[in-house]
Amino acid sequence: MSGNTFGRLFRVSTFGESHGPALGCLIDGCPAGLPLEPEDIAGELRRRRPGAGGASSARREEDRPEILSGVFEGRTLGTPIAILVRNAGQQPGDYDELRELYRPGHADWAWEAKFGLRDHRGGGRASARETLGRVAAGAVAKRFLAARGVTIRAWTSAAAGIRVPAARGAPDFDWDALDRQPLRMPGGKEADEALALVEALRRQGDSAGCEVSCAAWGLPPGLGEPVFDKLDARIAAAMLSLGAAKGVEFGAGFAAAAGRGSEQNDRPGALPAPLNAADLPPGVPPLGWESNHSGGVLGGISTGMPLCFTVAFKPVPSIAAPQRTADRQGRPRELEIRGRHDACVAGRAVPVVEAMTALVLADFALLRRKDRL
Amino acid sequence: MSGNTFGRLFRVSTFGESHGPALGCLIDGCPAGLPLEPEDIAGELRRRRPGAGGASSARREEDRPEILSGVFEGRTLGTPIAILVRNAGQQPGDYDELRELYRPGHADWAWEAKFGLRDHRGGGRASARETLGRVAAGAVAKRFLAARGVTIRAWTSAAAGIRVPAARGAPDFDWDALDRQPLRMPGGKEADEALALVEALRRQGDSAGCEVSCAAWGLPPGLGEPVFDKLDARIAAAMLSLGAAKGVEFGAGFAAAAGRGSEQNDRPGALPAPLNAADLPPGVPPLGWESNHSGGVLGGISTGMPLCFTVAFKPVPSIAAPQRTADRQGRPRELEIRGRHDACVAGRAVPVVEAMTALVLADFALLRRKDRL
Amino acid sequence: MSGNTFGRLFRVSTFGESHGPALGCLIDGCPAGLPLEPEDIAGELRRRRPGAGGASSARREEDRPEILSGVFEGRTLGTPIAILVRNAGQQPGDYDELRELYRPGHADWAWEAKFGLRDHRGGGRASARETLGRVAAGAVAKRFLAARGVTIRAWTSAAAGIRVPAARGAPDFDWDALDRQPLRMPGGKEADEALALVEALRRQGDSAGCEVSCAAWGLPPGLGEPVFDKLDARIAAAMLSLGAAKGVEFGAGFAAAAGRGSEQNDRPGALPAPLNAADLPPGVPPLGWESNHSGGVLGGISTGMPLCFTVAFKPVPSIAAPQRTADRQGRPRELEIRGRHDACVAGRAVPVVEAMTALVLADFALLRRKDRL
Amino acid sequence: MSGNTFGRLFRVSTFGESHGPALGCLIDGCPAGLPLEPEDIAGELRRRRPGAGGASSARREEDRPEILSGVFEGRTLGTPIAILVRNAGQQPGDYDELRELYRPGHADWAWEAKFGLRDHRGGGRASARETLGRVAAGAVAKRFLAARGVTIRAWTSAAAGIRVPAARGAPDFDWDALDRQPLRMPGGKEADEALALVEALRRQGDSAGCEVSCAAWGLPPGLGEPVFDKLDARIAAAMLSLGAAKGVEFGAGFAAAAGRGSEQNDRPGALPAPLNAADLPPGVPPLGWESNHSGGVLGGISTGMPLCFTVAFKPVPSIAAPQRTADRQGRPRELEIRGRHDACVAGRAVPVVEAMTALVLADFALLRRKDRL
Repeated sequence: MSGNTFGRLFRVSTFGESHGPALGCLIDGCPAGLPLEPEDIAGELRRRRPGAGGASSARREEDRPEILSGVFEGRTLGTPIAILVRNAGQQPGDYDELRELYRPGHADWAWEAKFGLRDHRGGGRASARETLGRVAAGAVAKRFLAARGVTIRAWTSAAAGIRVPAARGAPDFDWDALDRQPLRMPGGKEADEALALVEALRRQGDSAGCEVSCAAWGLPPGLGEPVFDKLDARIAAAMLSLGAAKGVEFGAGFAAAAGRGSEQNDRPGALPAPLNAADLPPGVPPLGWESNHSGGVLGGISTGMPLCFTVAFKPVPSIAAPQRTADRQGRPRELEIRGRHDACVAGRAVPVVEAMTALVLADFALLRRKDRL
Repeated sequence: MSGNTFGRLFRVSTFGESHGPALGCLIDGCPAGLPLEPEDIAGELRRRRPGAGGASSARREEDRPEILSGVFEGRTLGTPIAILVRNAGQQPGDYDELRELYRPGHADWAWEAKFGLRDHRGGGRASARETLGRVAAGAVAKRFLAARGVTIRAWTSAAAGIRVPAARGAPDFDWDALDRQPLRMPGGKEADEALALVEALRRQGDSAGCEVSCAAWGLPPGLGEPVFDKLDARIAAAMLSLGAAKGVEFGAGFAAAAGRGSEQNDRPGALPAPLNAADLPPGVPPLGWESNHSGGVLGGISTGMPLCFTVAFKPVPSIAAPQRTADRQGRPRELEIRGRHDACVAGRAVPVVEAMTALVLADFALLRRKDRL
Repeated sequence: MSGNTFGRLFRVSTFGESHGPALGCLIDGCPAGLPLEPEDIAGELRRRRPGAGGASSARREEDRPEILSGVFEGRTLGTPIAILVRNAGQQPGDYDELRELYRPGHADWAWEAKFGLRDHRGGGRASARETLGRVAAGAVAKRFLAARGVTIRAWTSAAAGIRVPAARGAPDFDWDALDRQPLRMPGGKEADEALALVEALRRQGDSAGCEVSCAAWGLPPGLGEPVFDKLDARIAAAMLSLGAAKGVEFGAGFAAAAGRGSEQNDRPGALPAPLNAADLPPGVPPLGWESNHSGGVLGGISTGMPLCFTVAFKPVPSIAAPQRTADRQGRPRELEIRGRHDACVAGRAVPVVEAMTALVLADFALLRRKDRL
Repeated sequence: MSGNTFGRLFRVSTFGESHGPALGCLIDGCPAGLPLEPEDIAGELRRRRPGAGGASSARREEDRPEILSGVFEGRTLGTPIAILVRNAGQQPGDYDELRELYRPGHADWAWEAKFGLRDHRGGGRASARETLGRVAAGAVAKRFLAARGVTIRAWTSAAAGIRVPAARGAPDFDWDALDRQPLRMPGGKEADEALALVEALRRQGDSAGCEVSCAAWGLPPGLGEPVFDKLDARIAAAMLSLGAAKGVEFGAGFAAAAGRGSEQNDRPGALPAPLNAADLPPGVPPLGWESNHSGGVLGGISTGMPLCFTVAFKPVPSIAAPQRTADRQGRPRELEIRGRHDACVAGRAVPVVEAMTALVLADFALLRRKDRL
């Protein structure tokens, strides 16, 4: 109810302030018997760390996850899995001025309007550092999904206004190489331009927005709970729960709104999709689809085609250039934000988008088991 | 869990198949003491009815809501409010062929893949007729919100690829006039063109997509539950839970992804917004904002500025032109969809978008009461 | 959240006031494909009707259930099942005086203290008539459980202070004969005495309490969610959610509190219980138990032995004898309750206890599917 | 859904195995602005520690709570409060034999039947040590309730079959003195006898059951959500979620089942109860009650009288005397349980019962705010 728990059967709560003692997550509902090692989590946390690229924050976080419960002799127990990451390297002095000032484009004032007080250090819980708990939990969900043949991959499809043609849908990139590109953006030429532009903006004390696309392969048909908890509705909520997200679209998305039914309708075809007939009830033919304008979801239910969607992220609001703002007395003030900030979330948002997708899909995979006698 | 309930404190469940005996909703959590009459609901259901325009279905639904419980002597009791609408005028013969065929762009096959069976008549519960329960519940939520000074309005900002300039944000239209325009689209010239184009497509046996924008005025700051149940995350889920929705964006939305921080950051200013200081905790200054690129939400919390968002709807998949498809034996077939179908959801989606928005906001308004001592 | 929904995966909401237009229930989460006819529900509602015995209310309710949704061609669709029962035969004039008076032992004043208003006619939603929706939903849950070999039976083990020896645990009664006994009490001699005593109390304008025991046979081991949603915890909540319930105990119950570990410990034994090995994970031996002091639940998880518990019900508070009370101005008044009232809930509580048990067990049976990979 | 979270608005999750790295809790929904120090929690954890009496385990736990999040400069932020207690002093060698054996009266086998594996060390998460997280969270809930004038007290009303007359209802004991008595049992003579008997049983390798009673003073009328989430229903679930609990009763409880309406009906009277009129809606008279057979709850809603209930606990199943049991191959075996175990939960259950009561009441206090316009 209070917003820090996500999921229904595979449930994840995150906790922690950016500059408090620790952050982490609590996973309740992960089935028993799943092999799980700290390294499964540490690996994903490393993907979330600031990279070498100009787009990333300079904060050198050493995020070592500790599994406090729920795992015994290398396998999950079916009990809550608590994962803890201690904060280190805080430089709270960076934030003293923010006790009295509200940053433009940030939640500082709204947070105070809601709770009456806030932890001003690094945005407290409104910090992007909160996603650390999501990524840790997502690592467990990915492990669960991988055993079912489900793969999730995200990438940057646009940054600083530069789009990569054909970086929508369910493409086939060299994912390892992509992970080494600072923005995690495919399409060499555009990625190089975008990286240069982001770096230039950073030097000017400015920042850039981006789009992150994601696909999931291997999803069985039938995931999604009509009518309110549709697969795309839950993914949309997961994505808009990310700090800087401003929009999401599935398959053809906003372009579909300008299209016609005769073009947009995905047709079931004679071609068999790579479906596992065991995923289908008796008597239902294992059909494929001739196109995937829907992005893998019809009526809120997975179709067996890859799930495809794109998330829009606004420019990082913490920019170095001086900005006009107001203080706690409501007086106009000028603010220069110090500290370490990414100029574009592109690179680091990729593992976060993947993690949230994994949380949604693991949850639906468990719910699926209730559908039929 | 099973997807037919929405909300946390203001909770709504809908029920009913398109051609079953009845549809309706159950509202649990509406506070006691709210004046409520059947006409409050009937009025909204009329707005959802097929209009005179060429864009709408010809089915003449007489949707008379009956309040079965939860209201006594004209006021809500604090107990569940059940609202029932009997189905009438079904022509199930229209659908006999669909028992064996899967319609392109529809959820028929996915529904069967999930549940093993389906009600093929008019799409069963996957029909747009399911939104009737949402609109009925939304009428109650609107009543609740109106008493708090919150107004919600939606309109069509694009249809059949024709956009109305300046139909984003929180505009000031002649809402009564808008309700009489078949597509509920402002901007006379574009609306006329769009209407003509939709009608032409309908005659060709085709259909058109659209975008519906929505704004809410008068929202107090502080609505929204970080980190997973952000105001925009819940709105996004609400919108993507609508059958043909393919995307949603808030404020500047996807355009923000191509923007820069120096432009996109909304700045708190000296100008007082029309806030009620009683909505703010002691010591928090009643600030306004110089811009609203964020669409009224920062960090998932309402800012006191109007909430603004836009939803993309794909073209209606039920088109009259012959389409290739497959049957329950997986064999290729040709299908001509009969029956009554809108060629564009634009006009009728408007009250549905408003209703879902009202459900989200009423829920947050109640949750807000837990925030502080 | 607002208290009118029960369950997690097999979810039931009830609605309706005693003298409003209708009562009913909404079931969300019943798996698809379950055969279901109105008679399945009507049969259980008849068991709940006032019987011929002196213990029961004289109101002749004709409770004909109508299934409004979720069932197609005799099988559940996996969508919400709405069941409606119209109220008939209300004699609201019976209750006019209660608009201004608070009945002793009733929730009238507490309800007003909570909501600020109430439907005074027959207690509104606080009426025992609300259990009609529970019984209707329980009938569906029973159908679901029966297909899994689970049987639920309740009976009156004490009434008006008269206890039936050996009417605890999981006895083997002639259930059809028991259903014809007005108090549904086994053990001829005690049942006759209790019935006579209840009747005598009724004639004196007084009423009697009772205990209802219940058992469920055929439960697979492993139902129950530690640590908060233990099987017994959920059953306890289900039972105390009944209007007149004042206590519940499992297995040896309160007697166990006076016992010793060496006697109370149930021991796993070499004797194989009638377990289905398919209900157990690989490597877990299909053990039986030498005793069942625990009532079929250890650590909140079903053990494979019958689930056994007993519920204490207070005397019906609506008695005919004059009582001192207070009115809405807080002034002392004398009240004579008119209308039709049972003198003991014994007979009619039996199907209600069974229904609530079925709701709990169906819910756990679905949740069970998430436990392991 | 998976059973490790309790509450709706004031939500608590616990985590941790008895002999894993740590235990703790996560509190989501505690309002912002509550003063909170680690000592508030440490104090309650000390009350839960093994005492000097013969009834308690010899394990010397040093349970130092660490607040990891949600508190800033001594006040709650409105964000999740994570509290961690490291395990220390484990002697896992005590439990090696239990890897292969199922303890009588314990959940060992049922846990394996559910999850397919278990942490055998000290019962893993089925250990009474799990209540540590509950007590930590309950300490925060108590702090929240104390600011509203609500006081909660529990005590042992019976142990080893010895009852303390007049230790039901809402008595007025010397609570500090009671906290120093090993069983936390009032009534000097009976308490001394009970303590001697428990100690004698312990020496014989046996154990004893007990009853713990609890009262809450200062509850405003109107707490409780009809119909399923009644105040007593939620308390019942909370109590039966405790490992050894076998029953619960409210007010007159099982005795009411043998009573008559004319005696059991609580009557509203002219006497004003110590109610705060601000807790009541306009027009509702601030009535008192002439008796409290109901235990402070009518129709599931608090009446303004003290909430009173009693919980039955079975004897501790871990007894030192040799017991017949079975092993993982289903073969008969003899078991002698080693390690440190209480012979009666009486003393230590008292703060746990208080903590669970506090969690229920804090949750209802927040929910109360949604009742009326």
